[in-house]
Amino acid sequence: MKISELSRASGVPVPTVKFYLREGLLPPGRRTAATQADYGPEHLNRLRIIRTLVETAGLSLTSVRKVLDALECPDVQDAIATAHDALMPATERPTEDARRVVEQLGWTVAPDSPALQELAAALDAIAAVGLHLDDDKLATYAAAAEQVAADDVARVPTAPTEDAVARVVLGTVLFEPLLLSLRKLAHQSISRRAWAAQRRGRA
Amino acid sequence: MKISELSRASGVPVPTVKFYLREGLLPPGRRTAATQADYGPEHLNRLRIIRTLVETAGLSLTSVRKVLDALECPDVQDAIATAHDALMPATERPTEDARRVVEQLGWTVAPDSPALQELAAALDAIAAVGLHLDDDKLATYAAAAEQVAADDVARVPTAPTEDAVARVVLGTVLFEPLLLSLRKLAHQSISRRAWAAQRRGRA
Repeated sequence: MKISELSRASGVPVPTVKFYLREGLLPPGRRTAATQADYGPEHLNRLRIIRTLVETAGLSLTSVRKVLDALECPDVQDAIATAHDALMPATERPTEDARRVVEQLGWTVAPDSPALQELAAALDAIAAVGLHLDDDKLATYAAAAEQVAADDVARVPTAPTEDAVARVVLGTVLFEPLLLSLRKLAHQSISRRAWAAQRRGRA
Repeated sequence: MKISELSRASGVPVPTVKFYLREGLLPPGRRTAATQADYGPEHLNRLRIIRTLVETAGLSLTSVRKVLDALECPDVQDAIATAHDALMPATERPTEDARRVVEQLGWTVAPDSPALQELAAALDAIAAVGLHLDDDKLATYAAAAEQVAADDVARVPTAPTEDAVARVVLGTVLFEPLLLSLRKLAHQSISRRAWAAQRRGRA
């Protein structure tokens, strides 16, 4: 298909498609004339992924590039690490506290894992505003995280194909907003019920 | 304390403190001379919150303002709703699918809840890249979300004080990165174990 058709099918404006081509996020089409190229379903698929990562997951172009790089990883574990890396804040933090938390949970992770940086940042932020994270609360959050992660990992086919890598990488990124929105809705649903019960108790 | 002392104590540069004062994010100090004002511990506390929201939670100034507004809510439920609102993407989406999911889970939420918008965006993103969200996976994510939310809500004192509102609002925002980083670390830990077991099985 022509670039105009690719634009229509993907919902991405032609100038933006050209920008992605220039930036190398989208591979070039098959040249059919001096100023024309032909694009296939793989271009459409790639464009849809870029659009989702930019618009819905709210990633920067730098992060999108890292996620796309992760999609090219031949190995699922490398792909997970690269995808995590794409979601990381840029600042470096000491990770002793984070490593201690992981140890306490009995988990094994690479000591230079970027997710340790993210955990360190999360712990710092919680402490900075005077919120208290006790062992019970940490255990509740860790158990929830472990449940969804176990489900994510269990669904990865044992023979990693290109499709498996894509599913792991995109799932890592795109199930985050799912989990966060469900947590917010659960907050509302549970607190509504709790306060309704309280009002009934008082009446 | 003087503005220079406030800056030192909070780690926020004086020009940034002045910017927050001009923007009304930080209430004015008690004027002691034509060009001097006195700041108290409430200013330091507020500055620490702003800094954490900007630097660690990565919120925009508009979102910070909404979270700070939520801190002023007299009612915990309003405060939760306002804090959720601060974390929302700006685009409007149809929410029928999201409402159906919430119904399927047996949760009760306000039909105009902004978190429904976020869930709708998450579902769209997952579908857009061809990932499949079946009922089992949804149930796993919902159960995890419900567990952490129940713990969050259970810790809210029944008589909502200013401090309780602050804890709910800041917890809503700042426990998000905790949950996400733990999910990533659990991914790594679980997949390491799974693949190690597989290699042992093959050997």
